[in-house]
Amino acid sequence: MATVDLIEYEDASPEVRAIYDDIRKVRDTEYVNNFWKALANHPKTLQRVWSGIKAVMAPGELDALTKEMIYIAVSVANSCDYCIHTHTAAAYAKGMTGDQYEELLAVIAMAYQTNGIANGMKVPVDDVYNR
Amino acid sequence: MATVDLIEYEDASPEVRAIYDDIRKVRDTEYVNNFWKALANHPKTLQRVWSGIKAVMAPGELDALTKEMIYIAVSVANSCDYCIHTHTAAAYAKGMTGDQYEELLAVIAMAYQTNGIANGMKVPVDDVYNR
Amino acid sequence: MATVDLIEYEDASPEVRAIYDDIRKVRDTEYVNNFWKALANHPKTLQRVWSGIKAVMAPGELDALTKEMIYIAVSVANSCDYCIHTHTAAAYAKGMTGDQYEELLAVIAMAYQTNGIANGMKVPVDDVYNR
Amino acid sequence: MATVDLIEYEDASPEVRAIYDDIRKVRDTEYVNNFWKALANHPKTLQRVWSGIKAVMAPGELDALTKEMIYIAVSVANSCDYCIHTHTAAAYAKGMTGDQYEELLAVIAMAYQTNGIANGMKVPVDDVYNR
Amino acid sequence: MATVDLIEYEDASPEVRAIYDDIRKVRDTEYVNNFWKALANHPKTLQRVWSGIKAVMAPGELDALTKEMIYIAVSVANSCDYCIHTHTAAAYAKGMTGDQYEELLAVIAMAYQTNGIANGMKVPVDDVYNR
Amino acid sequence: MATVDLIEYEDASPEVRAIYDDIRKVRDTEYVNNFWKALANHPKTLQRVWSGIKAVMAPGELDALTKEMIYIAVSVANSCDYCIHTHTAAAYAKGMTGDQYEELLAVIAMAYQTNGIANGMKVPVDDVYNR
Repeated sequence: MATVDLIEYEDASPEVRAIYDDIRKVRDTEYVNNFWKALANHPKTLQRVWSGIKAVMAPGELDALTKEMIYIAVSVANSCDYCIHTHTAAAYAKGMTGDQYEELLAVIAMAYQTNGIANGMKVPVDDVYNR
Repeated sequence: MATVDLIEYEDASPEVRAIYDDIRKVRDTEYVNNFWKALANHPKTLQRVWSGIKAVMAPGELDALTKEMIYIAVSVANSCDYCIHTHTAAAYAKGMTGDQYEELLAVIAMAYQTNGIANGMKVPVDDVYNR
Repeated sequence: MATVDLIEYEDASPEVRAIYDDIRKVRDTEYVNNFWKALANHPKTLQRVWSGIKAVMAPGELDALTKEMIYIAVSVANSCDYCIHTHTAAAYAKGMTGDQYEELLAVIAMAYQTNGIANGMKVPVDDVYNR
Repeated sequence: MATVDLIEYEDASPEVRAIYDDIRKVRDTEYVNNFWKALANHPKTLQRVWSGIKAVMAPGELDALTKEMIYIAVSVANSCDYCIHTHTAAAYAKGMTGDQYEELLAVIAMAYQTNGIANGMKVPVDDVYNR
Repeated sequence: MATVDLIEYEDASPEVRAIYDDIRKVRDTEYVNNFWKALANHPKTLQRVWSGIKAVMAPGELDALTKEMIYIAVSVANSCDYCIHTHTAAAYAKGMTGDQYEELLAVIAMAYQTNGIANGMKVPVDDVYNR
Repeated sequence: MATVDLIEYEDASPEVRAIYDDIRKVRDTEYVNNFWKALANHPKTLQRVWSGIKAVMAPGELDALTKEMIYIAVSVANSCDYCIHTHTAAAYAKGMTGDQYEELLAVIAMAYQTNGIANGMKVPVDDVYNR
């Protein structure tokens, strides 16, 4: 059977419940999204990925919204539909305005366009960038 | 012959020179990078792409450095080696610190990781994100 | 009309039916999945692709399950949703355990992560790997 | 300056040296490859990525060579040139034969081919795989 | 809220309506597809992208159908499901036959296959192509 | 050792030489490019891939140049540097003009741009395309 089971809180082991509780606390919401419920089939991976996300996505040298926009950009270019949905929602939740979203999209689209051109023309990297 | 010719200023048509001059003015540097010298083989495309870049990359709702970091993220995920080189250089030129770069990389890496997992497990998009 | 027609056995030409019969025999199942029913619109391509799959996916130096896991890995990274579904099902049918699947996913996720970092940092290939 | 610095052992902090030592011990080789020397510019990320690799790539439900072949498959499809080089070398070091490599390549190529067809024809996922 | 609003003609600003009217005129159809209704949330981007499409997709040195087939090829390889649907429909509308579509698919599949092999084997570019 | 060996004619087995001879005849050139010399390490794969290429790339419903341009488009989007080089050279050899190449590039770039937008905005496929 190929479709992933989503593990609900009430069916989860104590180990998995503790992680769900931590996700809720860190994100200040009752809602645990399907990604974690899917990963919960593999508790060790759940633990490792959640620890990584928690460390990396916390505000630091870059603020939390900037990080979400970078996350969206990667997810679009890697064609991860699930990730685009959740991180776009997360960016709005962290205060992204409609105008900021428009600019995010425009930058993504422009980067795509020049990625295609530079790869297509096999433009050689300038010496100044290789020193 | 498959390798792209790079059109130098002194060999360029007046139309292309005018665009090179604009690139220099907008970016406040004498240096015109290979991407534009390659595109100069196709003046109409050069004109269209430069107009787009100039409009999209100017500071607006997002600041210029945030835009460069989003550009890098897309270029990494689209495997555009040329674009990664130039926009990483541009981000440093616009004030990106080493610590900010570290966080940019960490977010890109984390997004990659969860892109792989979410696609691999075929996690269904939560109803709350599809409303 | 853009949506693909799926050619059922009873509507298929003798040529296509012979291939469906071979698929059933090689795979030891009555079920012919949609991929082949879609390809059946183009019998020559159906023939060429099925011959290739039959030759390549048979156990050889690598066992059949290892081949399915490699297939999944490529399909995830190429964002082929259809292929991820069918080859994950095939891997389970060939005996993949839940614990093996967890490790497969973990390796895919780790590879994604370092792919992003190595591309993002433009790490130069070591001389020892280029000799 | 856009090119990454490679931190050699003798220039590394004690913290980074400890990780290099662990890499050497786990891999049973004196050689530390450029990926780690590049990551050493960002010790926290170095630590996190190395811990992840060490845990994920150790033999478990899948043997070490199978894991390397999966890693190669992802790296090819994500166009990570650096990763292809290093993990192909690693697979040979772990005993991959030339004949196994040929089959690995053939499976990757076949998966690519059907990824293109399934995405191009928009083949709908069979109900049996979505249950 | 993450799902995109689709702006219908009757709810659109005069500026957006003018673009919808132009799309209808250039394409000689009443139907405006969802892509434009989604972009209409961002009128400047709508304007810029539509101008670009209108200029680039008009018959020129390449005929309109060839351009659609190239568009499909890129969209498949970038895993843009929406774009595959619309441009396949557009190609049929511009006269693509079933046999032409079969060959288009076969070329895409063959390119995918050798892309995987060439990247996987790290085949060095021949000197004759780099001169 | 990770770098691929290139098998020259004089070092090749009779089986491989026969394929090289066929490549030369079909392409009407003495030159055999590195891709085939790399594949020659795996004669069965060489045979299978060359048969496929010969069948698929011959003029049919689509002419040979159109096929090369579609091949380039896929190779750009799959980031296959080797394939971009060789198929761009092949397209020029088959009569592609500089102006046609400009339009090819412009279509590729435009497709990239809208691929990014459509994926980024998660534009739903119109009902008319799903019927």
